[in-house]
Amino acid sequence: MSLRELGIRAQAAARQLARTSSAERDAGLLAAADGLEAAVAPILEANATDVARAQRGGTSATVIDRLRLSPGRIESMAAGLRQVAGLPDPIGEILDGWRRPNGLRIQRVRVPLGVVAIIYENRPNVTSDAAGLCVKSANAAFLRGSSAAITSNTEIARVLRQGFAKSGLPEDALVLVEDTSRESATEFMRLRGLIDCLIPRGGPSLIAAILEHATVPYVIDGDGNCHVYVDAAADLDMALAIVVNAKTQRPSVCNAAESLLVHAAVAERFLPRAASALQGVQLVGDARAVAIVGPSRMGAATDEDFSQEFLDLKLSVAVVDDIDRAIDHIARHGSGHTEAIVTSDLAAANRFTAEVDAAAVVVNASTRFTDGEEFGFGAEIGISTQKLHARGPMGLRELTTYKYVVQGDGQIRT
Amino acid sequence: MSLRELGIRAQAAARQLARTSSAERDAGLLAAADGLEAAVAPILEANATDVARAQRGGTSATVIDRLRLSPGRIESMAAGLRQVAGLPDPIGEILDGWRRPNGLRIQRVRVPLGVVAIIYENRPNVTSDAAGLCVKSANAAFLRGSSAAITSNTEIARVLRQGFAKSGLPEDALVLVEDTSRESATEFMRLRGLIDCLIPRGGPSLIAAILEHATVPYVIDGDGNCHVYVDAAADLDMALAIVVNAKTQRPSVCNAAESLLVHAAVAERFLPRAASALQGVQLVGDARAVAIVGPSRMGAATDEDFSQEFLDLKLSVAVVDDIDRAIDHIARHGSGHTEAIVTSDLAAANRFTAEVDAAAVVVNASTRFTDGEEFGFGAEIGISTQKLHARGPMGLRELTTYKYVVQGDGQIRT
Repeated sequence: MSLRELGIRAQAAARQLARTSSAERDAGLLAAADGLEAAVAPILEANATDVARAQRGGTSATVIDRLRLSPGRIESMAAGLRQVAGLPDPIGEILDGWRRPNGLRIQRVRVPLGVVAIIYENRPNVTSDAAGLCVKSANAAFLRGSSAAITSNTEIARVLRQGFAKSGLPEDALVLVEDTSRESATEFMRLRGLIDCLIPRGGPSLIAAILEHATVPYVIDGDGNCHVYVDAAADLDMALAIVVNAKTQRPSVCNAAESLLVHAAVAERFLPRAASALQGVQLVGDARAVAIVGPSRMGAATDEDFSQEFLDLKLSVAVVDDIDRAIDHIARHGSGHTEAIVTSDLAAANRFTAEVDAAAVVVNASTRFTDGEEFGFGAEIGISTQKLHARGPMGLRELTTYKYVVQGDGQIRT
Repeated sequence: MSLRELGIRAQAAARQLARTSSAERDAGLLAAADGLEAAVAPILEANATDVARAQRGGTSATVIDRLRLSPGRIESMAAGLRQVAGLPDPIGEILDGWRRPNGLRIQRVRVPLGVVAIIYENRPNVTSDAAGLCVKSANAAFLRGSSAAITSNTEIARVLRQGFAKSGLPEDALVLVEDTSRESATEFMRLRGLIDCLIPRGGPSLIAAILEHATVPYVIDGDGNCHVYVDAAADLDMALAIVVNAKTQRPSVCNAAESLLVHAAVAERFLPRAASALQGVQLVGDARAVAIVGPSRMGAATDEDFSQEFLDLKLSVAVVDDIDRAIDHIARHGSGHTEAIVTSDLAAANRFTAEVDAAAVVVNASTRFTDGEEFGFGAEIGISTQKLHARGPMGLRELTTYKYVVQGDGQIRT
């Protein structure tokens, strides 16, 4: 089937889903979860094919680990669907409403986007997680995974679609693209009129391809070059705990800190302690930081180091003269994801949160909290670093739009 | 100055604007309004240059009328700035807020987008109107008008910038692009990192160029192929008034009706009355409509007629067997702008508003109400036909985004 035909199926399913009740969609998610548990054997068998192919192709052990499923991982996928089924339904919420002088009643009502497309890599669990969030929010999921996981994804999609159909939902609530060629990816992102929102989950080359080729609306899940700024008025013990946590608790994720800024007034006291606490973390700094920590522990940072998302145990460090310099540095190098200040000074906290332009500005806590679960959304489809539509963690609410419902009694415009 | 340099100036101004109070921005708008009134003579002189050039080039009278300024039109621009200054400030609104189990306090706060770019045609008043809305919402306005209006736009921008500067706002709160070449338009829509939101106000070729070339985020102000569906249970007098108003009150705008759908049960009674009331409107219909109205009054409609935004005194007409066919027809041909039903049947009204996917779904009123002023927004920068970010009329609120402000007491993630 052509991509366009697949899109038309997803669109038809989206129209059906928009008419379903929350209870019907939840039943579909639970049936799909049951289906996954009943299909552990065929899913593992399909996955073994993908893993064997990857091993033959010399794929790295880390990547193969992300690709590999286990009974426990399939159980987690099922549990994820059940958890999403238990979340409140975002659809139908009346965002606001008012009456006009001419008697028109206007309501702004939350509705599904329609067809949500997701391009993703490796992990086959995304097939189930993304479908769950889309169907919960009454959207059809139009999914394009990687060629490496195609056998697993195809089997998972078959099982989920069967579960949806069993409970009366359209099976095309989940449409998986089986052609994983590069040409098909480009065609996919140009299905304007069939895709209402595309969410790319992948590296910089995928984002670049979207910017260059996409004609469908999209939300960018981008880089996180996150900073921790230790202010002159910081509690240095707290700052130390936050910096260590933000950098090392899980360095490979987008809300990990990549850069440390320290006010000059506390740099001499703080930086040696930080360098010692950040065992195993490679440090690169500006001249003032290196002068304090010493060149044996800290290399010289280039301008590029300060703009880079290392996603690794590496941290760039700069000493700044005041909060203005910190805010300027972040404006110049930050990626608009998460920026934290450690301070006990109210004015500094207020200025930082007001003037730093990022999805999340954090006072006295780790950058690592910017995600859907930690924010209390129950689930997350990604973290937006753009300003339009959704900013920061994207949960069910961010998979919706609104429409105006206008009720009159024959009003005409004069 | 290069486009990139202009963008950097706008971005610097946006950072300054984000720190201003509502009172400071309102003062800037009032000073700009005073400036316009004091500069009627030089603005008219600049405009005369544009008008003379257009006349030499053989531009049509309609287009020249849109281009031409008068003391009254300049007065309206000033009045518009004063009116926007009087609107409530959207910035700083706390959209929601909650406390997490670990004690983190999370707030979602409305903030400016940053640099709002607008590409527009002819009418020089857009320079002032757009700058007013942007500055009110603490955004820098990065404007690119047409070559036809460049002398007028340059003079208006000079006056507004002077007004802003006089009251302490950055003059680069308004940056006008003076290079109106086609290459510069393409470069403009690729200033990723400098433009936070691009709003194109122009025809299909501009929209196509945006889809093809833009790498900056954008909101499409698209077509309105709006329908009026006259249900079996419609009050036919009301339906007649609504159809005539929706089609003829101002046929050249996007919220005018382009298509009439009539339930078969009332078509024989309604269509002859409608054909007679729609004096001067060219009618094209499907076979059933033509059979009722007669081929002398109604031509045969092609499939293309039903998908077209005529923006003129022309209406396509179809007879449908039931509300399902009406909803299907709209799903197939509509552009997602405004769709109206006339009915006294509650179930029909509920199904129509629930199942029709458009920015505005209207019961028993004219399609012509979908605009920012009629919705009570006080002002409008355009009408979005996309689903991401903003849908329907875009007022000040739609020129904003939000950030999460997270406050802790040293929380780290475990």
